[in-house]
Amino acid sequence: MIDLRSDTVTRPSSAMRTAMMEADVGDDVYGEDPTVNQLQDDIAALLDTEAALFTPSGTMANQIALHVLTDPGDEVIVDATSHIYNYETGAAGMLSGIQLHPVSTSNGLLTPDAVEAAIRPEGAVFPRSRVVALENTANKAGGRVYSLEHIHAVVEVARSHGLRTLLDGARLWNAAAATGADMANYAAPFDLVWVALSKGLGAPVGSVLAGSANHINAARRVRKRLGGGMRQAGILAAAGRYALAHHREQLVTDHAHARRLARAISALPAFELDVDTVETNIVIFDTPHASAQTIADELASEGIGLTPFGPHTLRATTHRDVSSDDIDTVIHTLRTLYR
Amino acid sequence: MIDLRSDTVTRPSSAMRTAMMEADVGDDVYGEDPTVNQLQDDIAALLDTEAALFTPSGTMANQIALHVLTDPGDEVIVDATSHIYNYETGAAGMLSGIQLHPVSTSNGLLTPDAVEAAIRPEGAVFPRSRVVALENTANKAGGRVYSLEHIHAVVEVARSHGLRTLLDGARLWNAAAATGADMANYAAPFDLVWVALSKGLGAPVGSVLAGSANHINAARRVRKRLGGGMRQAGILAAAGRYALAHHREQLVTDHAHARRLARAISALPAFELDVDTVETNIVIFDTPHASAQTIADELASEGIGLTPFGPHTLRATTHRDVSSDDIDTVIHTLRTLYR
Amino acid sequence: MIDLRSDTVTRPSSAMRTAMMEADVGDDVYGEDPTVNQLQDDIAALLDTEAALFTPSGTMANQIALHVLTDPGDEVIVDATSHIYNYETGAAGMLSGIQLHPVSTSNGLLTPDAVEAAIRPEGAVFPRSRVVALENTANKAGGRVYSLEHIHAVVEVARSHGLRTLLDGARLWNAAAATGADMANYAAPFDLVWVALSKGLGAPVGSVLAGSANHINAARRVRKRLGGGMRQAGILAAAGRYALAHHREQLVTDHAHARRLARAISALPAFELDVDTVETNIVIFDTPHASAQTIADELASEGIGLTPFGPHTLRATTHRDVSSDDIDTVIHTLRTLYR
Amino acid sequence: MIDLRSDTVTRPSSAMRTAMMEADVGDDVYGEDPTVNQLQDDIAALLDTEAALFTPSGTMANQIALHVLTDPGDEVIVDATSHIYNYETGAAGMLSGIQLHPVSTSNGLLTPDAVEAAIRPEGAVFPRSRVVALENTANKAGGRVYSLEHIHAVVEVARSHGLRTLLDGARLWNAAAATGADMANYAAPFDLVWVALSKGLGAPVGSVLAGSANHINAARRVRKRLGGGMRQAGILAAAGRYALAHHREQLVTDHAHARRLARAISALPAFELDVDTVETNIVIFDTPHASAQTIADELASEGIGLTPFGPHTLRATTHRDVSSDDIDTVIHTLRTLYR
Repeated sequence: MIDLRSDTVTRPSSAMRTAMMEADVGDDVYGEDPTVNQLQDDIAALLDTEAALFTPSGTMANQIALHVLTDPGDEVIVDATSHIYNYETGAAGMLSGIQLHPVSTSNGLLTPDAVEAAIRPEGAVFPRSRVVALENTANKAGGRVYSLEHIHAVVEVARSHGLRTLLDGARLWNAAAATGADMANYAAPFDLVWVALSKGLGAPVGSVLAGSANHINAARRVRKRLGGGMRQAGILAAAGRYALAHHREQLVTDHAHARRLARAISALPAFELDVDTVETNIVIFDTPHASAQTIADELASEGIGLTPFGPHTLRATTHRDVSSDDIDTVIHTLRTLYR
Repeated sequence: MIDLRSDTVTRPSSAMRTAMMEADVGDDVYGEDPTVNQLQDDIAALLDTEAALFTPSGTMANQIALHVLTDPGDEVIVDATSHIYNYETGAAGMLSGIQLHPVSTSNGLLTPDAVEAAIRPEGAVFPRSRVVALENTANKAGGRVYSLEHIHAVVEVARSHGLRTLLDGARLWNAAAATGADMANYAAPFDLVWVALSKGLGAPVGSVLAGSANHINAARRVRKRLGGGMRQAGILAAAGRYALAHHREQLVTDHAHARRLARAISALPAFELDVDTVETNIVIFDTPHASAQTIADELASEGIGLTPFGPHTLRATTHRDVSSDDIDTVIHTLRTLYR
Repeated sequence: MIDLRSDTVTRPSSAMRTAMMEADVGDDVYGEDPTVNQLQDDIAALLDTEAALFTPSGTMANQIALHVLTDPGDEVIVDATSHIYNYETGAAGMLSGIQLHPVSTSNGLLTPDAVEAAIRPEGAVFPRSRVVALENTANKAGGRVYSLEHIHAVVEVARSHGLRTLLDGARLWNAAAATGADMANYAAPFDLVWVALSKGLGAPVGSVLAGSANHINAARRVRKRLGGGMRQAGILAAAGRYALAHHREQLVTDHAHARRLARAISALPAFELDVDTVETNIVIFDTPHASAQTIADELASEGIGLTPFGPHTLRATTHRDVSSDDIDTVIHTLRTLYR
Repeated sequence: MIDLRSDTVTRPSSAMRTAMMEADVGDDVYGEDPTVNQLQDDIAALLDTEAALFTPSGTMANQIALHVLTDPGDEVIVDATSHIYNYETGAAGMLSGIQLHPVSTSNGLLTPDAVEAAIRPEGAVFPRSRVVALENTANKAGGRVYSLEHIHAVVEVARSHGLRTLLDGARLWNAAAATGADMANYAAPFDLVWVALSKGLGAPVGSVLAGSANHINAARRVRKRLGGGMRQAGILAAAGRYALAHHREQLVTDHAHARRLARAISALPAFELDVDTVETNIVIFDTPHASAQTIADELASEGIGLTPFGPHTLRATTHRDVSSDDIDTVIHTLRTLYR
């Protein structure tokens, strides 16, 4: 199967498995796993933060960060397409007692004006605006990329109203690969930022949350409470460290694959897609003449996996387990079926 | 002062105070306050529900209802202008661990299509759509009225997906006065409905939540937990019963006052207002050439109270403590200042 | 009926009703109810705090205070007989996400040693000890009274560990009446303290939470979120002000009634009671030879109300609606039935 | 270092690492990891339940189970020494809005009478008793074992009041090894049960929650919300499967080591220990003449790790990374230092 459903489906390579097998481990609940500690130091160095914390998932990284940055009853401004609002099972209310304020934008990227308009007035009856959370790249919006300038403008609005800021960097590696911007520059404007190891980087499990020592200390308590404290997690951290060292370059290729696939899709009358929107490894396109599920089923029977993203919308995601030949095969199949 | 800021500012009349003074009371935490019990029976009869429960506020009625109808992590579909989303201090996340799904509509009234589009797919990553909450009349949208047909169409979509339904009837009295529809018919489609005694009806304190006996039993426990169990609450319930008996007719007059005021405002170049949107006792208009706060301050110095509802938006609300002469005075002042 | 079930059952007197009828009122959600504001100032002056806030119930006062003083996941040390742990429907977990740490004591009064032993070690796996909450008088323990010295010793332990402190003063009036201590001295050691108007003082509804201006501002937001913001609440506040001015002296009489009743009960072989434990208006005694419910039912059929407080435990509470003659009648009936 | 601090510190053996390296994996958030699925099936078969779910930690297994079995405001009866009450950072209130009802027992094992006494009366003011949670073995109580008969008696009380039941089986393997009882028989009386792979069994990460298909479906949603959904978790599950197949027999040896160590400790005048209380792999003893921390520090400098469990209490835990020779060394050192 050529699995374009998500970049989360990558399987660890043999070399990555060897790194896991040879990992030096300890009890991370006691803070004694050397490989976890090293990974956390690596990420803190890369993002230029004081500290970092390994988590079992990106959802947990988001939820810990929201908890650390808010009090119950606070409101968090997010894009209406954000992962926090759409794909975390409604966790933010349950885990932090907070309200999300989803803002509709044209391309999944919050603008300074939209954030300004979403901030609540003072007064005991209003929710208290407390955090602006950005997602870079913006998954559900098709992997769109925030530039550094764009981020600075949004964060400036947030700061001027005393709001805190969070960067959901599940695919920040892709943003950096697409723009050439430095990861630390991307992280700098935010109170907390996290990056995933298990998406484009191809590690089996884990994300890393980074920020000030105070925030990360608080985050460690919250992680324990959510049940995210693991014992010899160095096995997983070793995969993360391997990915960090060896898999970042692949992202440029993934992006080229996505653009090539997008051009082919946009040329087919069955589909609608603006190739200029494909900036990274995600290709979201419409299927106006058929249900997305039908097409996903047809392609699945040809050994190609895509994800329905709406009644008439599909998502294809490129990643390191999809080769250039695979892309050729997919394009050929699409042309055969839908020309 | 002619106080058009809200219909919550009404003061109890002398006759209402006498009713309070003469109220037969008991300990309502023990269920022994005869006047509270009678009021609850009155409302249950009026709305044709099995049971009803007195609450200290409409916010508490909403929050109890949301808690009874949901589990933590569930999602509740509301209009983006709804009281639940905008004026309850972010309570729903904190008290029930739920997520709100605000839907933008043209006039504050949820449509069947908008609700259909907001319902989440199945799957462990998605929030679970659980409740659709309507507000009738829709306060922040200018007191707009849902017709019975409109409500039935929205509720049918909700039911077809297994969702529960809540009616925020803070001003359901006004909706009934405007359309002539029966209160029980308005309540019938909903799992839970509440009405306020402290707005247009002019009682000092309280709302009443109504629904099935099971839901109201659950609501009683939640009320206790929120600290809404009061002792000799019959003092307040007596005012509610008086209002029910004597103050409903006034609403028709309030609506006429609002329309008269609206026509005058729409004729002034300083303001923008479509008079056809004024269906009940709320007049929301724009102040494109000046900040709403500035105009509110100018009018306050003339003894007229209005509420800023946005940077360039004001709300005027008519109620039983505003007379026809008061409306004349307001119109005269507006013409003097803003012609 | 001679209702000894609780001091919450008192009905407002004619003079108190007149005070309510004549109350000057406004919209307290806007902070404009002069009688509410005056009551809050009165209590703040009496307890020598910067500010105070009216609440619809003591449960809400406790829950607001806990919310203001804690973060989710924190632990609050309470006596195992405390109202917070036993009679608030499990609210603290739901409203504040906190854990209660109930401590068993011999008489319902927390000791410095018991508090010291209950404080958690540092470390990410342990709950964080955050608040010590005392209840004076201790209702379920039989209305036992904390002396000022006792309170200072307990609070000193709390402070030395950086914990915050809360005084549930539902019956602090009774403690002050019993010991002669000044209310302000009782309140001084605590971050937040509240007193009830609806118990021994005989007002129909309400409690008042007092503390620093910062804490009370935060409390106002939490009150709104819980649905405790009421409109023309001055009606209720007027009763509270009347009670404050006229009903405190009665408490000494209530205590004398309780002790007289206790002596009679202790002399009956059917019951077990140490009269020295009866320090205020609450008489808790055991019924070793019969179920408490049976005896409560027998007395109810004679027109006397008591509250079962355990399988073989009953509570009698004296208050301003129970006269000296009533106590005579109760004693006579007990002697007749249970000698 | 001979690390007796906990059985969580075990490191994966070379054979276990090979099993991980060779694991067949997939995306477990999509339910497609064959090794995770196989492990879940293995545990469901072993415990004779309909379904099972892998979690990153025992804390998460406990917290998911509590969430599935309760509604906010419910109360859960636990032993005062339980892991849920003492070592989960106060999670239950924050994640589920519930109240814990800790019961003090003589040996960490809840009795039928203690549970009966802890169940709340009916009534809107009382917390609702909803779950009884047992921990077998009882860690903080020294690894004490519930017999099947004991469990049945406790569960019968719970069931007769309509309460649900949870078994924290972090060390259920040890209980089964100590009593010879079947794991399925231990699990049968409970609504939900979980077992750890990362303690005595020696896997690096993970626990498995088991119960009815309905409960496990609900648990899967909660796991996602807590951030416990991992991608190629089969790496970890492979270690768990290896442990299941090869490491259970070791527990009998661990228990013998613990008893041998206990006998030596009990013979030293510096310590107090009743060897009959040592039923499994945990040895808790008192240090009446010195602080536990001092002794822990002294032993640490000799290369022996113990955990302070109170001001004058230490815990030693045996496990597969502690050999018989290690026990000899520890005993020798203790005799040298503390005879």
